[in-house]
Amino acid sequence: MQKTDIAIIGASAAGLAAAITLKMGAPQTKIVLFRKASKTPVPCGIPYIYGTLKEVAKDLIPDDPFISMGLDIKVAEVTEIDTQNHELLYNGNEKLQYNKLLLTTGSIPFVPPIEGSNLENVFTIKKEPEHLELINERVKQAKNIVVIGGGFIGVEMAEQIAKLKGDSANITIVEMLPHCLLVALEEEFCIKAEEELKKLNINIKTNSQVTKLEGNGKVEKVLLASGESLDADIVIMGVGAAPNVSLAEKCGIPCDKRAGIEVDEYMRTRIEDVYAAGDCAAKFSFITKKPCGIRLASVAAYEGMIAANNMAGNMVKNRGALGAFSTKIGDVAMGAAGLTQRGCEMENIEYIKGEFVGPDKHPATLPNTFKDMKTILYFNKKDKKIIGGHVLGGDTAAEMVNIISTAIQAGLTVEDLYFMQVATHPLLTGSPLAYHVIRAAGDAYFKFKNL
Amino acid sequence: MQKTDIAIIGASAAGLAAAITLKMGAPQTKIVLFRKASKTPVPCGIPYIYGTLKEVAKDLIPDDPFISMGLDIKVAEVTEIDTQNHELLYNGNEKLQYNKLLLTTGSIPFVPPIEGSNLENVFTIKKEPEHLELINERVKQAKNIVVIGGGFIGVEMAEQIAKLKGDSANITIVEMLPHCLLVALEEEFCIKAEEELKKLNINIKTNSQVTKLEGNGKVEKVLLASGESLDADIVIMGVGAAPNVSLAEKCGIPCDKRAGIEVDEYMRTRIEDVYAAGDCAAKFSFITKKPCGIRLASVAAYEGMIAANNMAGNMVKNRGALGAFSTKIGDVAMGAAGLTQRGCEMENIEYIKGEFVGPDKHPATLPNTFKDMKTILYFNKKDKKIIGGHVLGGDTAAEMVNIISTAIQAGLTVEDLYFMQVATHPLLTGSPLAYHVIRAAGDAYFKFKNL
Repeated sequence: MQKTDIAIIGASAAGLAAAITLKMGAPQTKIVLFRKASKTPVPCGIPYIYGTLKEVAKDLIPDDPFISMGLDIKVAEVTEIDTQNHELLYNGNEKLQYNKLLLTTGSIPFVPPIEGSNLENVFTIKKEPEHLELINERVKQAKNIVVIGGGFIGVEMAEQIAKLKGDSANITIVEMLPHCLLVALEEEFCIKAEEELKKLNINIKTNSQVTKLEGNGKVEKVLLASGESLDADIVIMGVGAAPNVSLAEKCGIPCDKRAGIEVDEYMRTRIEDVYAAGDCAAKFSFITKKPCGIRLASVAAYEGMIAANNMAGNMVKNRGALGAFSTKIGDVAMGAAGLTQRGCEMENIEYIKGEFVGPDKHPATLPNTFKDMKTILYFNKKDKKIIGGHVLGGDTAAEMVNIISTAIQAGLTVEDLYFMQVATHPLLTGSPLAYHVIRAAGDAYFKFKNL
Repeated sequence: MQKTDIAIIGASAAGLAAAITLKMGAPQTKIVLFRKASKTPVPCGIPYIYGTLKEVAKDLIPDDPFISMGLDIKVAEVTEIDTQNHELLYNGNEKLQYNKLLLTTGSIPFVPPIEGSNLENVFTIKKEPEHLELINERVKQAKNIVVIGGGFIGVEMAEQIAKLKGDSANITIVEMLPHCLLVALEEEFCIKAEEELKKLNINIKTNSQVTKLEGNGKVEKVLLASGESLDADIVIMGVGAAPNVSLAEKCGIPCDKRAGIEVDEYMRTRIEDVYAAGDCAAKFSFITKKPCGIRLASVAAYEGMIAANNMAGNMVKNRGALGAFSTKIGDVAMGAAGLTQRGCEMENIEYIKGEFVGPDKHPATLPNTFKDMKTILYFNKKDKKIIGGHVLGGDTAAEMVNIISTAIQAGLTVEDLYFMQVATHPLLTGSPLAYHVIRAAGDAYFKFKNL
């Protein structure tokens, strides 16, 4: 029988991160990596196929570097796992014996229980090249495009399609909440994102629920709870994803259909020598330590690294998923790490808020200055530690979010962040007198002083 | 007699940061701010006057926001301080009584003891608008331009002048060390910077010393130790700066001509109620705790904030100056926080180096991707803490340096940085599998494992 040190089922962020990690630690480790898709798309890059990149081929993770690392990539479905005997079955009847197994089976886009969801030209975003290519063809032909869900995927898809098709398309986002992106971002940033979307002539219907999709074979109309009806040649659904636990479930690996495969803080499932990481694994929040549904490629890669280290015997604990995101809508980049104001309130965490607005270059007379770059920071009122941060501005906003992300994970306090030294440069950052993170921390610092 | 709560002498980074801080903490605080210059130039923006901005007026810090804060700005020279009676003299015979005094008198460009330094059209970079305007006029007329000193100021001045004048000028940088920028940056980054300078047709003479400037009234030639002679219509000197301690010295405030005004960790001078911050104050290194000469606007602003907090009674300690810089030469941004390899070696600190090269966007097929963004991290071999980090890439390199800067100040270890979660986005950062700081930390992590 074929044997391997490590078998990994799933080849997106978590699986690949684990493979890289294992090979970095011990290049001679034998790793077999299974994937069902012919190629792995760059998951977060998918929306950019439909505007900037123009082809699916430009959004694929190349296999070559992984093959050079000595990875055995098998394009095959694993159908059975005999966890007792450390064996798995693939391609119908081929068997592989493993020492340790990692499940990184990802997530499956959620399809809301709406009549007409199965009509032609109604798409979820599955991470399969052929599926993504089909969407590409249909998007090119479509005039009326409805995106259901105003989260990151929905908003980015709409933005990219609008950039590609200009006025030749009529694009509408339908979102249940009062604003797009509201789960992840500060309300004022959501409003700014919506303004950018509107500049691209995208229609936004918030506080809106889809009740039915209509059409004769192909989708033709999207009906809303308000009674309104939208013409639709194509419907794209981006309303979240559920952990893909079907294989785990079938093979007796304890899991919860909604939360994912049960794992401990070392990413071990309840079954010996079986680990799980990424979207398929249950999660808890870095900040609240409560169960959470933060499914991001960055969290998946983190968990894959943790799992790989533990499989290799370097005991490392998962500290919990931190929601850290960024995006760019129109000309505005924005992002967040940790809790929003809404999140603090939902968790009943008393906070002190600090904020600052200033240019992202200095002097602000420099070309391409983003004059009103904004940073908002939330500190726990109890221990003064930073629990959330938000940045809106030019392209450097994303790395500024990562300064905040680093600060949250380091457990920094308002004093730590206020009395911080940073590199500043006219063309690249705000000024030493008006560096966003420091000034926002200063705003909070003096609010603490005045409590 | 006029009275004030706080008098500040000097209105650049340290003085203004202190004033902002005091007003944030207690808006009713009476502050008088003295400066000799008619306006305060944005110090780090000065090189950009000569290429991108084109006028001195675009590089001035506006007074309005400070006046709105209630600051009393006096364009006047303070000539005496009676520290016993808390009084100072300005404008010849006007007196002001202060409760607390902050000296932020900055630094004075160093003029090397070379024959001919006093010829016409030989300039140091003084932070005075009229002086900067004169340089602007003379640069416009000049054909042969020699920059003495390949540090940040010299390199940025040369780069900007080259961008402005193109092939109509013949620009040469003369540097004593084997590479430009070598005191601050990794050698390989210095080489990359030199490549960018050469693309702009700038001549670089490293390992070269100037022995004499020649000319008949106006400078005409720069003679090198090698015997070579360079034609020069204008010479710009950027060879460092010495703390401006003349007023302190005159008024009996203990100081060292080279190190600066003596201060304790609360930024207090040896005289009661007199503080000092910024380029004029003596410094010690955040990393080694030894005396050091890190004179940066960002450090000055930090010290100004510390001094202001202590003047207001919030006892806050200066943790020492951290060298954190960034710059952009041609199309390449680069920066550093903490020690270089050379710095580690000079300090006899045993280190483990981690590095990573990858694109600054993902997939790398996206337009304007900087394909070989590089990050280098140094960790102390003894305690695994990060002591230095270096980034070269697109414009986001500067904020990535600030992630490293934050990590150094937070005392993070190789594990902390490797098992870090960050926000990633196709258009804005490297991928979750190839995020530079994490992967460079991973490289070092496994080197530690294999020790």
